[in-house]
Amino acid sequence: MSNPRQLVLNLFIYPGGHHEAAWRYKGSSAERILDITYYQELAQRAEASKFDAIFFADGPALADNVRFAQRFRFEPITWLAAIAAVTKRIGLIATASTTYTEPYNLARLFASLDHLSKGRAGWNIVTTSAPQAAQNFGLPEHPPHHERYERAREYLDVISRLWDSWEDDALVNDPASGVFAETSKIHTLDHVGKHFRVRGPLNISRTPQGRPVYVQAGSSDDGRAFAARFAEAIFTAHQTLDSAKAFYADIKRQARSFDRGPDEIKILPGISPFIGSTQAEADRLQEEFNELIQPEYSLTQLRQMIGVDLTGYDLDGPVPRHLIDTASARGVASRFKLVVDIVDREKPTIRQLVQRLAGARGHWVIAGTPEKIADNIQAWFEGGAADGFNVMPPWLPGGFDVFAEQVVPILRKRGLFREGYTGTTLREHYGLARPASIYSNQVKAIA
Amino acid sequence: MSNPRQLVLNLFIYPGGHHEAAWRYKGSSAERILDITYYQELAQRAEASKFDAIFFADGPALADNVRFAQRFRFEPITWLAAIAAVTKRIGLIATASTTYTEPYNLARLFASLDHLSKGRAGWNIVTTSAPQAAQNFGLPEHPPHHERYERAREYLDVISRLWDSWEDDALVNDPASGVFAETSKIHTLDHVGKHFRVRGPLNISRTPQGRPVYVQAGSSDDGRAFAARFAEAIFTAHQTLDSAKAFYADIKRQARSFDRGPDEIKILPGISPFIGSTQAEADRLQEEFNELIQPEYSLTQLRQMIGVDLTGYDLDGPVPRHLIDTASARGVASRFKLVVDIVDREKPTIRQLVQRLAGARGHWVIAGTPEKIADNIQAWFEGGAADGFNVMPPWLPGGFDVFAEQVVPILRKRGLFREGYTGTTLREHYGLARPASIYSNQVKAIA
Repeated sequence: MSNPRQLVLNLFIYPGGHHEAAWRYKGSSAERILDITYYQELAQRAEASKFDAIFFADGPALADNVRFAQRFRFEPITWLAAIAAVTKRIGLIATASTTYTEPYNLARLFASLDHLSKGRAGWNIVTTSAPQAAQNFGLPEHPPHHERYERAREYLDVISRLWDSWEDDALVNDPASGVFAETSKIHTLDHVGKHFRVRGPLNISRTPQGRPVYVQAGSSDDGRAFAARFAEAIFTAHQTLDSAKAFYADIKRQARSFDRGPDEIKILPGISPFIGSTQAEADRLQEEFNELIQPEYSLTQLRQMIGVDLTGYDLDGPVPRHLIDTASARGVASRFKLVVDIVDREKPTIRQLVQRLAGARGHWVIAGTPEKIADNIQAWFEGGAADGFNVMPPWLPGGFDVFAEQVVPILRKRGLFREGYTGTTLREHYGLARPASIYSNQVKAIA
Repeated sequence: MSNPRQLVLNLFIYPGGHHEAAWRYKGSSAERILDITYYQELAQRAEASKFDAIFFADGPALADNVRFAQRFRFEPITWLAAIAAVTKRIGLIATASTTYTEPYNLARLFASLDHLSKGRAGWNIVTTSAPQAAQNFGLPEHPPHHERYERAREYLDVISRLWDSWEDDALVNDPASGVFAETSKIHTLDHVGKHFRVRGPLNISRTPQGRPVYVQAGSSDDGRAFAARFAEAIFTAHQTLDSAKAFYADIKRQARSFDRGPDEIKILPGISPFIGSTQAEADRLQEEFNELIQPEYSLTQLRQMIGVDLTGYDLDGPVPRHLIDTASARGVASRFKLVVDIVDREKPTIRQLVQRLAGARGHWVIAGTPEKIADNIQAWFEGGAADGFNVMPPWLPGGFDVFAEQVVPILRKRGLFREGYTGTTLREHYGLARPASIYSNQVKAIA
């Protein structure tokens, strides 16, 4: 039986893989992490499996725990441009910060990516949680959460209008008449707001998708409200079906208040699967990764999530729950809640908690047979918890290959995932409409 | 006879070509100007001819005379990333502004381009002359020339140290020991200056070239001083051998005062050749282009160079010299001088002046046989006027093909230009040393 509603599947690419010790695993390609052909090949494999998109995270600062993990960052838009050149269909989603970029510059970068990829660009909109970023941009301190979202809302208003500033038929490009652009269809914004003053118009014509697909990943109250209003896809971290269902229902409900239908926002939890031909084999594989964990590193990661440094505590003793309180939560608010939930639900030792989070920085880690993975995906998809998934292989490229070869065929057999692409743009893969320019049918123009 | 000193040749790519009416010429590819494969093919042709580099101009604002010419801009770094993916050797030079970008962001873009191209990135450093850019970035007005260069100097200091912040051996990436980075070899800048406060370090390891090749194009007094200090290649516009020789001597002299040898700065005038099998044929070709000129457009271009609007004057009457004085010069100072020199030397009509400048926005336009073009190139190269050229074909792709097929073989026969690449990076093509990190052998580090 074929199912008309289809899963969205993205491949979230982290250099060596999503398990924090992946780069130490024998099957990883640690030595190729700065080689663009490694990423091009990953994208080609994901495209061969008809995935919707590949996705890169980003942040404009060096993590202070880079000593023990691959915490470097290439700039993802340039990286995706090089990947676009060797792929044809797969979507290309880059993270970029509204706090540490200028809207005119970012509008240009994504417009170029969408033009050169012929409509495959997506923008994961973040406000940047790492406080050290501020020091790279001359700010006295990292702006507080609420202020970052206030700036982000104005940013979205500005950048959307920049992408709309050339109406679709403004580009005439007619050698015979000598008219290159119909300037009555190119619009200034003349935006004057609290954070930005931007005249416009953009200096390139409207892109194949009109605008890149808007993706968002914040799960705080501000983040949810922002996502419900702007996002066309949401990346989110949930450890349980119940948590994902509650989030899913909340977002779709909030979206209604902005006159947006449930199909206009794809909710995509992360999933990091350890796959084995038996449950025992999958568990052993996961155990192999956990043995490569370096606690010096893991505890710095945990500190960033909960604001408490547990260095010096007995790794095999209980998590000192009384030290963890909301007051100390900084950075990603949703991750704090997620960790506290695990501690309260599972009462882990520090080592167990660290292993739990090492899998994919708080995302859903599942170990099992291909059937079990597929069953869970189907249960979340049909149970009101997900419109698809950000697949986060524990290691790369092998961890993706196993998923593509063993799980995807099951999903296909069940009619849940496409056999082939039906469209050419990321919007078409996601089933999203191409937005009209907000200036269409308006009078004001530059000439 | 082979000549040990070799010409540098870059292909400067302007969408339809460098003549302002190129896009209206029957041989142009006007319809492909937003198609990345058009630019990829041009780069591949330049690489097949063993050119040193391709080059893109840029500016963060829409030209106000876009109605009659292809005055749009794709973002060149993303564009070059997509070109890098389908080429192996040719250098990739993008223009970017120190006035309208943040050093941390730009450092990341070029570091990624240099990594993904395996050492082929070059940065044409500009301070942006178009005053309308300020309005896209919330500035009350475009900063004056001198202030832009003051910011540029501090910018260069900051961005150079960001690119140096990981010493070459800071990246360890050793799965066995679990050490990814030797943090004693990763350095903060802790820069606090008039224009920037940047802590650093950069969030990616040092690139194949250490830093992109520094290119510069300003010819004002500030521009020359800046170039003598920082530039490794200079793009410059000259109408006559004498003008080019004076510039060449001045730059190499100023460089000495910064302890830089003459070989450390390649001086590369623009050349836009109309090529025919006879002089008459070349002249006819140029005339064909001039007939496609639209005076409505040309006069706006002229106004930007000299600060005077000649609309309404008889096109076939003399240039009203008394209206043009230094006081009204705005924008690119060197272009103003160049136009005044033409007016004083040649006493052209307005139409003749417009045609003179339509060729390549003030760069050297020459019409003749392949031998004549080669003779002139050799005369400038051996006469102390040039280390090579920025080749600016009047139209593309055909205008480049003619140069590659008819002029390059003559230059090769005379031993002036390489038969094949001997290196893999742009620095190697240009014969420039790879700079050591300024932090090498220093003590201060992040941990």
